Amino acid sequence: MNNFEFYSPTRFVFGKDTENEAGKLVKQCGGTKVLIHYGGGSVVRSGLLDRVKKSLEAEGLAYVELGGVKPNPRSGLVYEGIDLCKKEGVDFVLAVGGGSAIDSSKAIAAGVVYDGDFWDFYQGKWIDKALPVGTILTIAAAGSEGSGDSVITKEEGNYKRGATGEGIRPKFSILNPALTQTLPPYQTACGITDIMAHLYERYITSSTDVEVTDRLIEGLLLTMVHEGPRVIADPDNYEARANIMWAGTMAHTNSCGVGRNQDWNSHNIEHELSALYDCAHGAGLAVTMPAVFTYEMPRNVMRFAQVAVRVWGCQMDFEHPEVTARAGIEAFRNFLISIGMPKNFEELGAKEEDIPKLVEMLCRGDGRDGTISGFMTLNEEDCTKIYKLMV
Amino acid sequence: MNNFEFYSPTRFVFGKDTENEAGKLVKQCGGTKVLIHYGGGSVVRSGLLDRVKKSLEAEGLAYVELGGVKPNPRSGLVYEGIDLCKKEGVDFVLAVGGGSAIDSSKAIAAGVVYDGDFWDFYQGKWIDKALPVGTILTIAAAGSEGSGDSVITKEEGNYKRGATGEGIRPKFSILNPALTQTLPPYQTACGITDIMAHLYERYITSSTDVEVTDRLIEGLLLTMVHEGPRVIADPDNYEARANIMWAGTMAHTNSCGVGRNQDWNSHNIEHELSALYDCAHGAGLAVTMPAVFTYEMPRNVMRFAQVAVRVWGCQMDFEHPEVTARAGIEAFRNFLISIGMPKNFEELGAKEEDIPKLVEMLCRGDGRDGTISGFMTLNEEDCTKIYKLMV
Repeated sequence: MNNFEFYSPTRFVFGKDTENEAGKLVKQCGGTKVLIHYGGGSVVRSGLLDRVKKSLEAEGLAYVELGGVKPNPRSGLVYEGIDLCKKEGVDFVLAVGGGSAIDSSKAIAAGVVYDGDFWDFYQGKWIDKALPVGTILTIAAAGSEGSGDSVITKEEGNYKRGATGEGIRPKFSILNPALTQTLPPYQTACGITDIMAHLYERYITSSTDVEVTDRLIEGLLLTMVHEGPRVIADPDNYEARANIMWAGTMAHTNSCGVGRNQDWNSHNIEHELSALYDCAHGAGLAVTMPAVFTYEMPRNVMRFAQVAVRVWGCQMDFEHPEVTARAGIEAFRNFLISIGMPKNFEELGAKEEDIPKLVEMLCRGDGRDGTISGFMTLNEEDCTKIYKLMV
Repeated sequence: MNNFEFYSPTRFVFGKDTENEAGKLVKQCGGTKVLIHYGGGSVVRSGLLDRVKKSLEAEGLAYVELGGVKPNPRSGLVYEGIDLCKKEGVDFVLAVGGGSAIDSSKAIAAGVVYDGDFWDFYQGKWIDKALPVGTILTIAAAGSEGSGDSVITKEEGNYKRGATGEGIRPKFSILNPALTQTLPPYQTACGITDIMAHLYERYITSSTDVEVTDRLIEGLLLTMVHEGPRVIADPDNYEARANIMWAGTMAHTNSCGVGRNQDWNSHNIEHELSALYDCAHGAGLAVTMPAVFTYEMPRNVMRFAQVAVRVWGCQMDFEHPEVTARAGIEAFRNFLISIGMPKNFEELGAKEEDIPKLVEMLCRGDGRDGTISGFMTLNEEDCTKIYKLMV
């Protein structure tokens, strides 16, 4: 096991009606003037935004609003948010929504207290300070509610890049599973896929003797395998929603990923798909992961056999472990299809002829050196082959 | 799943040589004058104490020392520590040792900033503030390094009681698995048993639809089943020590226990054994748990069958689930015996004729009303029967 540091100081407030505690929590964090940052009309139509405002007003807190966050959140709105916060003297950013609203909020919070261009953080600069951020989560997916990460797409060049730092870990996150009950099945399934991707990206490792984190990841994957189909069949199932929501948060605080090398090639390869086609990140991952795993599997057959046996219930073929490893990848692919995810480029709306462009953006874009590095270092030829496996 | 709040702001610094970061971490927390609180001679003999002092000196920090913490730490030393801290103007308490040193440190830290008798906290008063506490862990067991809990034994009356509060959650905990390599096998096994008890106490629940926390607990139990015998067979195995250490911490931060009712009857019933006979807490638990589980199992046969199948690899007897449930309890008992734990009163050094006294202390001591309450509410008759199962 590698040496590591783990620090997750977010206060998670979980359960029914917990959004009504938003005002109290902001006040505890010392906030006085809040930016409420959100996406489209659903948080307005559902009445959630009104409840949040009432909760802030009850504590005597002032606020301004900025809606309009899109999936794969853009740099343009981040600049707008930074300007608004500076102009209005905002001292707390409250995200209401999913990973996009949260990531956009984190970018704004970091940008407000930074003299340079916030995009510096998305080119590798560590975020050590930011305005305090709180979240009210409306979809179990990105895990951004409990992470120090944020992903933003820069409109010039269409680059989708991530930033990290303790400064943007949320001070609190309100997790009410009931808020996710109105999500359409497709979005729910995208969220399930994203959560499972966060688990697989940590599971695929060259580290050895990492039984404790293996077992934690497998436990969370088994939860998703059990609860995913339940919630797709019955979107109002609060209990299944609750299990998925806590699994999604635990999947990404990194308590199950410490002390081991991780992969993240699937995320990098997918990012170019959602950047180019503006597809849902989860849907892109559903197509990407089986291809990446098929390509990476020969490098560590036993690891893929292990997840096949422990999570997917495959019989171990002791003479041909690669048969078991492949069976596990197929079981995962079939699971994703069963919850309504696309299985290939066509179903995703991607085009084979764009592969050279995808590879160029992936391996050369924004200053990269022709490779991406995770469990394996992949060059342009590798990435081309992987995209072709998705066709 | 029940509504819950989860907040674990401890910074965990894990791996080889991490004790050398103690000074830096204390300084980051604003400490200037440190009480180093520890137990017996092993931290002195091993040179650990010297390394810790050097690390503090390198940051220009002053310190005083208080050794002598015993297993089942006593109130007398806590009072002594409180007086010392007040006299010396200590502003940070650094525990070096296991659960006993940490629990004693937490009690001192709470007592220094409290006007009344610190024992009030151990009679149910919530600890909302205390001097900051840091820990350097030398045995994987109690989980106190990541919890807001502390257990102290009051010398008058021999009452062993727990206190809780956010004020005593460690600011940081240094976890170097190599520091545990010198532990004798018996103490290592006691630690393994304590960790598994923390998991079982959370697993045994009347809550339903708690798949995610079930799976996390099972993952940690499976880790202990795998790594426990490895480390008993080979005490120098760093990797097995590392897996056990992180499992021990994760078992008790409560990330795997949120949103569900928990049991803790085994802990309460054991506390009287270690209070009366001064046996190791883990050894007492090894004798207590199989008896408690045998007594509680009929109340929720399927829960005990589930852990039997998922953790102990028992075949499910679909016609007679209680057969599977019992097989799981026996598998756990045999596991504990295999790592060197006692199996009954005789091996523990307890006496059947003391049972009335144990029951009296348990159910009536320190103002209790004749019952203890966990997964089941147990009266004096129940507790007598449970102690008799251990004979």
